[in-house]
Formats: sequence, C-alpha cells, structure tokens
Amino acid sequence: MVRIAVLVSGGGTNLQALLDAQDAGGLGPGRIALVVSNRKAAYALTRAAEHGVATAVLSKVMQPDPVLYDEALLRILQENEIDLIALAGFLGIVGEKVLAAYPGRILNIHPALIPAFCGKGFYGLHVHEAVLARGCKVTGATAHLVTAGVDEGPILLQKAVDVLPGDTPEILQRRVMEQAEWLLLPRAVRMLSEQVEGEK
Amino acid sequence: MVRIAVLVSGGGTNLQALLDAQDAGGLGPGRIALVVSNRKAAYALTRAAEHGVATAVLSKVMQPDPVLYDEALLRILQENEIDLIALAGFLGIVGEKVLAAYPGRILNIHPALIPAFCGKGFYGLHVHEAVLARGCKVTGATAHLVTAGVDEGPILLQKAVDVLPGDTPEILQRRVMEQAEWLLLPRAVRMLSEQVEGEK
Repeated sequence: MVRIAVLVSGGGTNLQALLDAQDAGGLGPGRIALVVSNRKAAYALTRAAEHGVATAVLSKVMQPDPVLYDEALLRILQENEIDLIALAGFLGIVGEKVLAAYPGRILNIHPALIPAFCGKGFYGLHVHEAVLARGCKVTGATAHLVTAGVDEGPILLQKAVDVLPGDTPEILQRRVMEQAEWLLLPRAVRMLSEQVEGEK
Repeated sequence: MVRIAVLVSGGGTNLQALLDAQDAGGLGPGRIALVVSNRKAAYALTRAAEHGVATAVLSKVMQPDPVLYDEALLRILQENEIDLIALAGFLGIVGEKVLAAYPGRILNIHPALIPAFCGKGFYGLHVHEAVLARGCKVTGATAHLVTAGVDEGPILLQKAVDVLPGDTPEILQRRVMEQAEWLLLPRAVRMLSEQVEGEK
C-alpha cells in the first residue's frame, strides 16, 4: 500500500475526484491516508472527515515563518508515514525540506497546458482570465511532478479542453475541472503510486 | 470573390491543403490567385503551377534589403489585386508596408498552441523539438492574424494534437500537420474570406 497525503486549500473538488477514484478502485496501490489544509475553513476537510480520512490544518496564521512551516509540514507527513503527496488546489508553496524528503513523489495539477499560463501569478481563476484575454480556443490541464521551480517539474499527463464562445473565467474553470483535472489527477496519482509501490 | 495570395517557402503541403479545400468548395468566396515563394526551388511552386495558379519568386538573394523586399512584395500583391494573404509555411518576415496595406487580412498557421512555443526561434522542426524536450503530452496548431509582433496577433482557431511515446520531431511535425494545420488553415482562410467579402 502507498500512503498518500492530499494537500488542499479550498472546496476540495479535486480531493473528491481522488476519493471517488479510490472508492472505484482507481488509485491502484494508492490509499488516501491524510488530508492537510492550509486553511482551517476549507470544505475539503469536511469531505475528508466524511470519508474517514485523517486531517490536519497547518496555516500561515499558525506558522508564519516559511522555514518552520516547511518543517512542521514534513513532521506531519512523516508522523503519518506518507509515501506520496498530491497537491489538489493547494495554494501554498512546498518548502525545501519537504521537496528533499519526497523527490519525484510530489505531484500537482495545473489548470492549463504547461508551458502556457504557468509559473508565478498563474493560479486559480487568474489562469482562466489570462487564457480568455489571449483569445485562446484551446486550454487544458497538466499533471506534473513538483520541483523547486513553480510549475517546472516533469509533465506526467495533459488533456486539452475547448474554450467556447461566451466563456467567463468561472465557466471555463469549471469545464477544465470537469473535463481534465478530475480525470488527470486520479490517473497521475495511480501512475505514481504504482511506481512507488514498485520501488518499495 | 476574394483574391488570396499564399506565401510559401518549402514543400507546400499547407498550400496543397488550401488547393484541395478550394476544389471541394471549402474556401467560401476565397480564390487562390497567387503563390509567392521566397525560395525559387520550393516545391510549392510546382503545386501551384499544376493547379494553374500564378506564381512569383521573391528571395533574399534577389532582394537582400528588407525594406526593398517589403516594397517589392507589396507591389506583387497589388499588381495581382490580392485581398487576403495566407502564410503557409512561409519562413520570411512580412514587413511594415505589407502589414499596413493588409490590416487584419494576413493570417498564419503556427504549429503549436500559442502562447506555448511561439515567437522568435520557434519555427519549423524547432517547435516540435522544444515540445518534446519539455515533455509535453499535448500540442497542436494555431491559425492567427499576423501583426507586427511574431506570433502575437489575435487567435482565430486552435486544435490540440496528442504527443505520443516514441515521437521524434519529424513524426510529431507530420501529425500536427495532418491532424491540425491542414484542417485549420482552410477553415481560417474561409472565415477571413467571408469577412472580407462582407466588407466589400
């Protein structure tokens, strides 16, 4: 079994996609063992609790120093014997120590086709606003490994999604979630879980 | 009728897609009236001649000065009463005077999903080499209007194409042509032809 921590910040729809995939046997050897939120009011925590998954809250308010935050997060992950980390709408930054402890074992889902609309400033609705401002007709999502550079790690999976006339950032965000993120994230988690299981 | 000039540099497969579309009634009011090559050995010239389309060659060897090149190209276009310009694998740069004479009436096909892999240095096989080097799983093509900035004009159409395991730049280039460029370019030319016809 590969123990997975899912890091969240908000509503947790990507977490829900992972929980649903797990229930359907879609995560292979992967098992969601912990949900960590950097916001105590994140609805994702409720979803986790309803699914019987352990939760932890570690916010900037609780720990404003980024180095100490990184250490506290690492401690929580190690105490829970986590093998693999999935960032699922997590708006924080993963620090050096966590990165060093989990090389090639942290994945993220980005709501655009990297290298387009990625890097600093491109998160949440801002991504979709930029896609619409450029007049793109195709966007998508990318599951990638997390390295020190923002959105610079190796790409695992990508899926294209059409931009349609009349789209608002909110409508486009929802379509990218439904047609790409919620499919790619469980597939990427399974791929990486199988790899980690093979290395054990 | 909207008179179209197609600017080429090489084998002319995108020109062929336009000629085939025209034969099938797919260019609407558009009519390919002229093919201009910046290389005298371009096979595209043979395709044009076989289709009874007028041709012209204007190379850097014949006219190394970019300002005079621009003027010479504009003269050829005006002598042939061209309404609309399609860049189809044209590796030259369209100069200020041609741009000013054809505002919103020049379109280009770029073998990637703009804003990814576009701008200076991203042409021909280099685009596909860069897509593979980044490990992208999705690429595509973009039909866009040409403005003074390279690949910065408004996007008309985009289509995604999968990158597959084992792809070489050459294999990927061919797939992007077949699955995207040869479909998008005739559609974009028709769209713009209909618009120009409406403005006459």
